[in-house]
Amino acid sequence: MTNHSFYMELAINQAKALKGQTDPNPLVGCIIVNEGRIVGMGSHLKAGEAHAEIHALRMAGEHAKGATVYVTLEPCSHYGRTGPCAEALVEAGVSKIVVATLDPNPLVSGKGVAILEKAGIEVITGICEEASIQMNEVFNKYIATKRPFVTLKIASTLDGKVATRTLSSKWITSEEARTEVHQLRHQNMAILTGINTVVEDNPALTARIPNGRNPIRLVMDSTLRIPLDCQLVEDNQAETWVFTTSNYNKEKKDQLEAKGVRVIILKGEQIHPEGVLDYVGEKGISSLLVEAGATINASFMEYQFVDKLIVYMAPKLVGGQEAPSFLGGVGVEKMQEATNLDGLKVETIGTDLKITGYPVKKKG
Amino acid sequence: MTNHSFYMELAINQAKALKGQTDPNPLVGCIIVNEGRIVGMGSHLKAGEAHAEIHALRMAGEHAKGATVYVTLEPCSHYGRTGPCAEALVEAGVSKIVVATLDPNPLVSGKGVAILEKAGIEVITGICEEASIQMNEVFNKYIATKRPFVTLKIASTLDGKVATRTLSSKWITSEEARTEVHQLRHQNMAILTGINTVVEDNPALTARIPNGRNPIRLVMDSTLRIPLDCQLVEDNQAETWVFTTSNYNKEKKDQLEAKGVRVIILKGEQIHPEGVLDYVGEKGISSLLVEAGATINASFMEYQFVDKLIVYMAPKLVGGQEAPSFLGGVGVEKMQEATNLDGLKVETIGTDLKITGYPVKKKG
Repeated sequence: MTNHSFYMELAINQAKALKGQTDPNPLVGCIIVNEGRIVGMGSHLKAGEAHAEIHALRMAGEHAKGATVYVTLEPCSHYGRTGPCAEALVEAGVSKIVVATLDPNPLVSGKGVAILEKAGIEVITGICEEASIQMNEVFNKYIATKRPFVTLKIASTLDGKVATRTLSSKWITSEEARTEVHQLRHQNMAILTGINTVVEDNPALTARIPNGRNPIRLVMDSTLRIPLDCQLVEDNQAETWVFTTSNYNKEKKDQLEAKGVRVIILKGEQIHPEGVLDYVGEKGISSLLVEAGATINASFMEYQFVDKLIVYMAPKLVGGQEAPSFLGGVGVEKMQEATNLDGLKVETIGTDLKITGYPVKKKG
Repeated sequence: MTNHSFYMELAINQAKALKGQTDPNPLVGCIIVNEGRIVGMGSHLKAGEAHAEIHALRMAGEHAKGATVYVTLEPCSHYGRTGPCAEALVEAGVSKIVVATLDPNPLVSGKGVAILEKAGIEVITGICEEASIQMNEVFNKYIATKRPFVTLKIASTLDGKVATRTLSSKWITSEEARTEVHQLRHQNMAILTGINTVVEDNPALTARIPNGRNPIRLVMDSTLRIPLDCQLVEDNQAETWVFTTSNYNKEKKDQLEAKGVRVIILKGEQIHPEGVLDYVGEKGISSLLVEAGATINASFMEYQFVDKLIVYMAPKLVGGQEAPSFLGGVGVEKMQEATNLDGLKVETIGTDLKITGYPVKKKG
């Protein structure tokens, strides 16, 4: 007896292994089962190449006839570089399709299923839906909003501090946690920080792991205070984009551009995160890692732009009301207005805790 | 083949079940094994009654001869109400003794083992030592220092806040976590808070669980601001002791004493935690739960009086640099001076995290 979850989990795991190599396309896996035997397996490998279903159909050959197809994402209905998968499935004569999630793009969602059902194929949806959605959380967010999926990364003490009262902060977390942060940078297309962090720490914001892919480095800098000799300007490890306001220093802009830095002037006298997100979304950046100070962190939280929060929490205490907490700013007024986290996960990494959650969006 | 850890864990588990009923004595378990068969089992049940070894020897009878005895604490060497256990073991003719921990009282530590070895009995120590020490952490601290074992309990948000900037704090944690706090109160002989908490929240500080034992309630109140109509003064649910300074209000002292409150005048113009700990230790209080505000929490941490930290951390964020963090005060200067936690344990309780650890004492 077939077990839908068993095959769908297989399809999900097979797709997950390709994480990072299908951008800007989603991760998709497909398993074809005929009379209790797996006859086809496929995953989408690279944008512009065959979709998962096509690979699996090719492997199955004649055995696709009358088979059940497990696919993590609704088969596509549009003529792209590889033709609509829904029609290929119809032509192959499969008899049943099990889908984890519908297409997150509201313009095409449900259209693939409609083609299949119209051809008399039984369609079951929602099997392992949550796992499939999570696997493509970045893609889903971007396709639906044209803004990047924002991960806010924090390194704090157990008492929520990112530095002592004298702003001493090296090091809060263990080497293992700091190495994982390089992995996070590798997985995100861009990384954002504030001008104070650049001035104080002169970070490279690169992914210093083997085969690490450096994200585009974004700086929020309302007056262009960024030093011309800082790593972000000088090191040529990745692009650096500086967001500024109408108050920007014009001479500095020319100097930065001469060094290959992109300077983006946003409207207004203060940089609103929304302006940054709209700009980078338009440039095709689907994932953004925020590694900034308490004020920028708080601003992204306040405007509900954080999709995922990752806190590397060291089991240590610094104390001090004046020591900066990881969320600065004004904060909420009442405890009932606190932002809750969904999907909480706690792991141990090195000597630290890694706490992951999804801030629940508030209404209004 | 006997496995020392197997029998010692059995002895420890059997002793642990008596938690709360042996005060002021420690929890002790004993297992006697002869030729691979358990022939005797015993635990210390109540102060003034037989020690664990005596119960186990009685059960073993003749089978104690030539047997191996597993006992979680070094057999006693002194003539108390039940005679020295070390001598009883010698008389019973056992051939080997396995001990988890030596007696924590420096005046007698090692004396029981000496009696046994002098009689030609083989003694092995240190089996499951950590688990045995942890089981009696309160007793061990008290017997060695005459000061109570201090547990600092915190309820905070993920960003380390105990309230919002407007001091709104109800509720941070889930009902399950709040219920467990009543269990903690039940397990501690005294509970300490500050006058600000009393004035603002008017707490009862009682153990509101079935068969809950209320701790003695301690308040740090340098000028005797405690309201005469607050629950701690009026409710008669448990004793209330108020610690004050030379700046105390004399008329208020008489009024409080007339209502059955004990007023303790410490030296100096500020209440130092040390004075409180010395006083309650002298009165036989071996365990103290601190449930206070950011300033008292920080003061206990700063003077290294916290033996165990329990943080109930809700997966929510309030933000705001002005919102009080759970450790107020000044805090450490450098990140390297942060207080580390040993024996970190993370559990889930209700929707919250429960993080437990033992602050590592610093030198000097």
